[in-house]
Amino acid sequence: MAYEYRIVREVEFYHTDMAGIMHFSNFYRFMEAAEHAFFRSLGLSIHTVDPEPLGWPRVHADCDFSYPLRFEDSVEIQLLVREKRQKSLVYSFIFRKVNGERREVARGALAVACVKRDSVTGKLTAVPIPKAIADKIEVAPAEAFGA
Amino acid sequence: MAYEYRIVREVEFYHTDMAGIMHFSNFYRFMEAAEHAFFRSLGLSIHTVDPEPLGWPRVHADCDFSYPLRFEDSVEIQLLVREKRQKSLVYSFIFRKVNGERREVARGALAVACVKRDSVTGKLTAVPIPKAIADKIEVAPAEAFGA
Amino acid sequence: MAYEYRIVREVEFYHTDMAGIMHFSNFYRFMEAAEHAFFRSLGLSIHTVDPEPLGWPRVHADCDFSYPLRFEDSVEIQLLVREKRQKSLVYSFIFRKVNGERREVARGALAVACVKRDSVTGKLTAVPIPKAIADKIEVAPAEAFGA
Amino acid sequence: MAYEYRIVREVEFYHTDMAGIMHFSNFYRFMEAAEHAFFRSLGLSIHTVDPEPLGWPRVHADCDFSYPLRFEDSVEIQLLVREKRQKSLVYSFIFRKVNGERREVARGALAVACVKRDSVTGKLTAVPIPKAIADKIEVAPAEAFGA
Repeated sequence: MAYEYRIVREVEFYHTDMAGIMHFSNFYRFMEAAEHAFFRSLGLSIHTVDPEPLGWPRVHADCDFSYPLRFEDSVEIQLLVREKRQKSLVYSFIFRKVNGERREVARGALAVACVKRDSVTGKLTAVPIPKAIADKIEVAPAEAFGA
Repeated sequence: MAYEYRIVREVEFYHTDMAGIMHFSNFYRFMEAAEHAFFRSLGLSIHTVDPEPLGWPRVHADCDFSYPLRFEDSVEIQLLVREKRQKSLVYSFIFRKVNGERREVARGALAVACVKRDSVTGKLTAVPIPKAIADKIEVAPAEAFGA
Repeated sequence: MAYEYRIVREVEFYHTDMAGIMHFSNFYRFMEAAEHAFFRSLGLSIHTVDPEPLGWPRVHADCDFSYPLRFEDSVEIQLLVREKRQKSLVYSFIFRKVNGERREVARGALAVACVKRDSVTGKLTAVPIPKAIADKIEVAPAEAFGA
Repeated sequence: MAYEYRIVREVEFYHTDMAGIMHFSNFYRFMEAAEHAFFRSLGLSIHTVDPEPLGWPRVHADCDFSYPLRFEDSVEIQLLVREKRQKSLVYSFIFRKVNGERREVARGALAVACVKRDSVTGKLTAVPIPKAIADKIEVAPAEAFGA
């Protein structure tokens, strides 16, 4: 059972915009990268086709930005499991700049639904999270979310 | 005085991901595109350097996704001014697929601060929205947000 | 029979980088957007599944950059069919800034193979371009490539 | 004096497209990431402002794609200095998938000019590569480019 995972990413040149900082859309991409790495850390993949194709479409995402990231900064993305429901998961993310003086720079959240995809029609239907996955994930304790 | 603007964007191949739908990070990019087009429609630019460099860093962004967009879909992004404060603006966005059967696919929000950038240190400081800008923008009436 | 197509795209904020210009990776994305729009203009889609799944993976792409594009520039991407072989196509692209003083800013090329995808193994195999597609496309005359 | 550098990047979900493979535009982004990491490995930065603002705009980029990369693949990007001229550099890049069976998947090139940026007009002018930089970089021997 796990409720937390951390990855580190570098701010590459292509992440920046003409304001000289990392474009905010990349925070969402980094949240997702942390989610996928969390799954891999549990021996799972976000992309499974056996016994049936499962997916995790995003139903909500938000982020509060408190400090800009710049080219060549290193950013740690900490994933915390905030809610675990029958058919969905909610993650919180804390972004910290870890080069120079360590500091929190943003906080975000991602709510994802567990769906199966009909192989003929392509239609997505929400389904209960498979036990093999649900058994490996637990909600983080309240104190884990402290700044 | 304006409180609304609409743009249409095509879902290009590079917006899609291996799930066959538009990657969710692009919704945030399209919100920003609508914000900038709104400014242009008022004879303004999001990027001004005269009389002093002004910027509009994002302090918050969120989005709820209700229906997937696919390659070659056309999406209308409707911007609505939700809040107008002394040093910040909050926009709401309604995304609608406008090819085939018209339908709402997502709703988002963007909160931006008005800042000036020190030309020597690069430090950003929140400042009141210049009158020339503030005078052109008003909050949308409640009924504009109906589905 | 067609050998040419033009689209116009706006340089959005998210296309820019900290050098204040459009990041060069977006030229490749715009080439592809022009290729797909060219197919649509012929009543075709780059993404077909009937009678069998066909794809057009890129085998080569290049671009020469002569002038930077900036935020809010409008860029015309002109596609020209340069080569038409049994199993592949080569396109040339001329990028022109069309706001302000019209000028050429870049030239690129894209070589794509026609492949079918095995629905079981996912393996890609080069196949002859279907006649229904090949009959609609011809090579541009030499003079079309003049500056 | 150095003529080579290697980085490894993961193929993230947001790098993929609806064809289920990494979108080709990302190969160019990874080339650039390797270029910047190469500079850092020499104690340099691609982004210098002292004694004067120097930049390295791309004047040409190409890539040949021989094998698709998929989500969660690890790709090694090997940079090799191919040409060193007074005002420009040409790099070659070899992409290798390094998870599973190691194999070459693409080869690319990037030609960059050394320019200074006028702080008033923003105009870019090609300038000789500063000695402090040029002294650290040499051309790779021919055998380094073997497959």
